[in-house]
Parts: sequence; structure tokens; C-alpha cells
Amino acid sequence: MNNPPSLSQSLKYYQERSNQQLAHWIAAQPFAGHTLIEAMKHGTLLGGKRVRPFLTYVTGQMLGAECADLDTPAAAVECIHAYSLIHDDLPAMDNDELRRGQPTCHIAFDEATAILAGDALQTLAFEILADGPLSPEGNTRRVAMIKELAQASGAAGMCMGQVLDLEAEGKHVDLLKLKSIHKHKTGALIRCAVRLGALAAGPKSVDVLPQLDQYAEAIGLAFQVQDDILDLTGDTKTLGKPQGSDLALEKSTYPALLGLEGAKEKAQQLYQEALQALDAIPYNTHQLEVFARYIIERNN
Amino acid sequence: MNNPPSLSQSLKYYQERSNQQLAHWIAAQPFAGHTLIEAMKHGTLLGGKRVRPFLTYVTGQMLGAECADLDTPAAAVECIHAYSLIHDDLPAMDNDELRRGQPTCHIAFDEATAILAGDALQTLAFEILADGPLSPEGNTRRVAMIKELAQASGAAGMCMGQVLDLEAEGKHVDLLKLKSIHKHKTGALIRCAVRLGALAAGPKSVDVLPQLDQYAEAIGLAFQVQDDILDLTGDTKTLGKPQGSDLALEKSTYPALLGLEGAKEKAQQLYQEALQALDAIPYNTHQLEVFARYIIERNN
Repeated sequence: MNNPPSLSQSLKYYQERSNQQLAHWIAAQPFAGHTLIEAMKHGTLLGGKRVRPFLTYVTGQMLGAECADLDTPAAAVECIHAYSLIHDDLPAMDNDELRRGQPTCHIAFDEATAILAGDALQTLAFEILADGPLSPEGNTRRVAMIKELAQASGAAGMCMGQVLDLEAEGKHVDLLKLKSIHKHKTGALIRCAVRLGALAAGPKSVDVLPQLDQYAEAIGLAFQVQDDILDLTGDTKTLGKPQGSDLALEKSTYPALLGLEGAKEKAQQLYQEALQALDAIPYNTHQLEVFARYIIERNN
Repeated sequence: MNNPPSLSQSLKYYQERSNQQLAHWIAAQPFAGHTLIEAMKHGTLLGGKRVRPFLTYVTGQMLGAECADLDTPAAAVECIHAYSLIHDDLPAMDNDELRRGQPTCHIAFDEATAILAGDALQTLAFEILADGPLSPEGNTRRVAMIKELAQASGAAGMCMGQVLDLEAEGKHVDLLKLKSIHKHKTGALIRCAVRLGALAAGPKSVDVLPQLDQYAEAIGLAFQVQDDILDLTGDTKTLGKPQGSDLALEKSTYPALLGLEGAKEKAQQLYQEALQALDAIPYNTHQLEVFARYIIERNN
């Protein structure tokens, strides 16, 4: 019997698989070579850990879906993530010039093109869920996934999180408020990625949705705590974005509220919560388990 | 027997009905009263002719759908239109400060909020199609409508149209190119509004889709020709936006290419094309017919 793939092998495999899917969908758009299409490629295909597709693939397969059945929801959730990064980087928002070691979309192109490339990537996410391969074919599953993605992305989820984050700049924010910001800004889409995997696997997955939510909420917040820690302790080259940018924007962070050691403890505690949630899931949760550890141990 | 409603009665009825639907959907979002929600209301509820919902309602009912079955697609298409106006008005795009006689979203709020309100309205469009009432219930119809709306809105449709329009500023553009800009920028969503009505009415409507497309393409372009004419001949108060703004942005227009009389003839010719398309449709096309005339005779 072969050894199970290591986490780094799995991460690499799903990263490449997601990249191929995203490249395929963008190539399928008309107006090949046009600035808008190039800006969409820039925003999606130049790196990225593909955390959300990974979660969709791994959760779905754990629950019995074939890998190929998960290409559609995995590509859709990553399109939403990619659009949100393009818009978050805009001058009117976080005004970032560097992302994944590359100039951000509005620097590489211009602001109007970046806004429209983000808009078109959001649209593409829903086109993919409505039109991408899905086996067994099932429009009920498609509609459930579209509803899930919309609710996680819009005014009840990610968009609201970005507004809450912008509002909090330069203000004192307590732990409860900080948690609420991240729950919406990054947590909602991470939770959605896990749920899309479960929805793609079919109706029997409904039983484990509460445990999956608990897992996803814990790693979603842990992801952000680790991001805050890296913003303080990482270096610009490894991060692919300027170290210290939270400080520059006067953003509240976990290390600012809890101290660096306190933030590390918080990450550990969230990791334990994630493991507890997995304990109650009667499937092979190994990959989700090692992924939770990766979230709090990563250095970029 | 009662007289059929006049066009102005119909327009008013569907306008109010759309407004109620949009208000309902925005009120259903959490975070009531929050800036993001207020900006979404500002972008959707302060006026607007509701041309696209009108087309969805009238086409769908012509083909046998109940009015209540059309609330969902009509609200969805208008959310896409509303988001596109908010983003088009941004400083990086058309930099407009006045729309429908009111300050544009980024003036009334700020740029970041306007970008995010537009983003969240796009998401809401797909949430509405996935989750809004639809009778008879049918996920196949939902998926068909979501695919239709995504293809009309994204990089193959409206978003591309806005890029083409921005690229053409200050450049000489010939008639063929101008037609292509408008076909994408406004035409795609107007065509989609008509098709959503047909899709909601069920499978038998497929037979008349080619004629409906022809009608929609003619009135979509006529709408734009009339917009160009009004930008030259209207007054700021009636238009609700500054008269002469095309000239200010050095945009190519039909009057610039054909002269004012030539543009008026073009509008007439498109009106005739729309009528011809309706002639081949074996349903009561009266409302679509009078609407086509309204498109080229309106003064705002």
C-alpha cells in the first residue's frame, strides 16, 4: 500500500489543479488577449495558495465525491477570492501595490480595468457554478451551491467584512469586534469553501455540516491570526507583500491586542478547536487535520 | 371589457413593483442601517425607469407566465444594472457626480463604500435567482437564468462593454465599433432581461427566442442612440444627469458620427426593425410594441 500523500504534495496537487481550471475558464471567455482578460488572468493565475479550493476538494472527497466533481465549486470559490483581492488592493481601499510578489492589478493595468476585472471575476464564479461540469448532473445541487456562495460573498458575508475592516482603521477595536470583522472578511468564504465540498458530495453530507462549520470557523480565524503574526514577524520577500502593512494602515490585529505570544496561543487554541470539531466527524479527516496545522505554522 | 393599460400606466406599475421587490431584498440582508446597506439602497431605490424589469415582466406574461413568477428574475436583472451604474460612475471610470438627479453613490458615501455596494449588489442578483420565489418551482429554470445573467453581465457582455467604452474615449470610433461597444455595454443586459422573461415562462418559449433577441437587440441599440441624442438636446434637470457629459468625456456618439438628423433616422430605423421582429411572434406583442416607440420618443 502506498503512503498517503504528504500535505505539501496535496497542496501542490490541488494548487495546480485549481490553476488549470481557472486558466481554462478564463481562456473560454471571448475577447482573448484583451486587456480585461489579461487583468483577470493577472488577478487569478499569478500564484496564490489556493486554500479555498483545497478545502473544497478535500472536504468533498472525504465525503465521497470524485475529485472531478469538485473542480466546478473549487474554481468558483477561488474566483470570488481573486476578485475580492483585486478590489481590496484598490487605492480607495487598502491601496496595496504588491501582492504575491507582483504588482497589484491596478498597478499592472489601471484602476478602471482592475475594478472591471474584479467585477467580471465575480460574475465568472456564478457562471462556473451554473455551467461547469458536475457529475452526477443535478440542478438542485447547483442552486444550493450558488445560494451558499452568494450568501458568503455579499452584504451578509465577505463584502460586509471588508466594510467593517475599513471602518475599524485607526480606531481601537476590541477582541469581539476583531473576531466579527474576520468572521465576515475571510471566515465566511473559507466556511463556504468547506460547505461547497459537502454540498457537491450530496445530501448525506448535511449531517456533518455543523461540525464542518465549527472546523471552518476555527481555521478561518486561525488563518487570520497567523496572517497578523506574519505581518509582524515575516519578511516582505517571503510574504510577497510588504511586511508591516497592517501597522501602516493602523489596523487592529491579534498581536496588537494580545501581544505576540498571546496571538500565538490564540492560534494554538483555534487549532485545538478545529481538531475537536473533526473528532465528531465519522469520516477520514486526516487531510483536514494536517491542513489545520499548516494554517498556523505557515510562514507566508 | 376594460381598455388595456396605457404604456405609462404599465411603466408605473412595473416600476413600483420592481421597487418593492428590490426594497424587500435589501431589507432582508442583515446589518440593517449599516452604511453598506444604505449605499446599496441609494444605488437601487432612488429612481430609475426600470426598463429591464419592465421587459422581463412584459415578455414573460406575453408568453404565459404569471406576474408573480417574474418578480425574481426582474429584481435580479435590475440589481446587475444598479451595480453597473455605481461602478461606472466611479472616479476611475466616468467620474459622474450626478445620477437620476441625486449625488452618485461615491459622492453620497465614499469610493470604497460605492465599490463594495456595487459588489454586493452583483452578488445579490445571483442570490435572488438562486433563492427567490419561483412558481412552478424549478431548479432547471433557475440554473438557466443564472447562466443567462452571468453571460450577459461578465467579460463576454456588460463588463467588456464598459472596458470598450473607456478605451474609446478621445479616439475616433467608426459606426461598427460604436455598435459593438453598445451591444456589450447596454445591449447584452437588455437582451438578457427579455430572455429571462422567456426562460421564466418555460420551455415552449424557446421557439420565439430568436425573434425576441432580434427585438431586444434593436431596442437596446435604439435606447443608446436616444441616450446620445438626449445628451445633446436634453436639459440637465429632465435628464437627472449633466447634459453634454458625452462631449465632456470625448465619447463617440451617434449624433457625432451621423449628425443629429442622421441619429434620429437611425433610431427610427431600429424601431422598425423591432416591429418586424415582433411581427414574427405569435403572441400578443402590443406592450413590447408600444415600449419600442417609448424608447425612441422618451425625453429622459
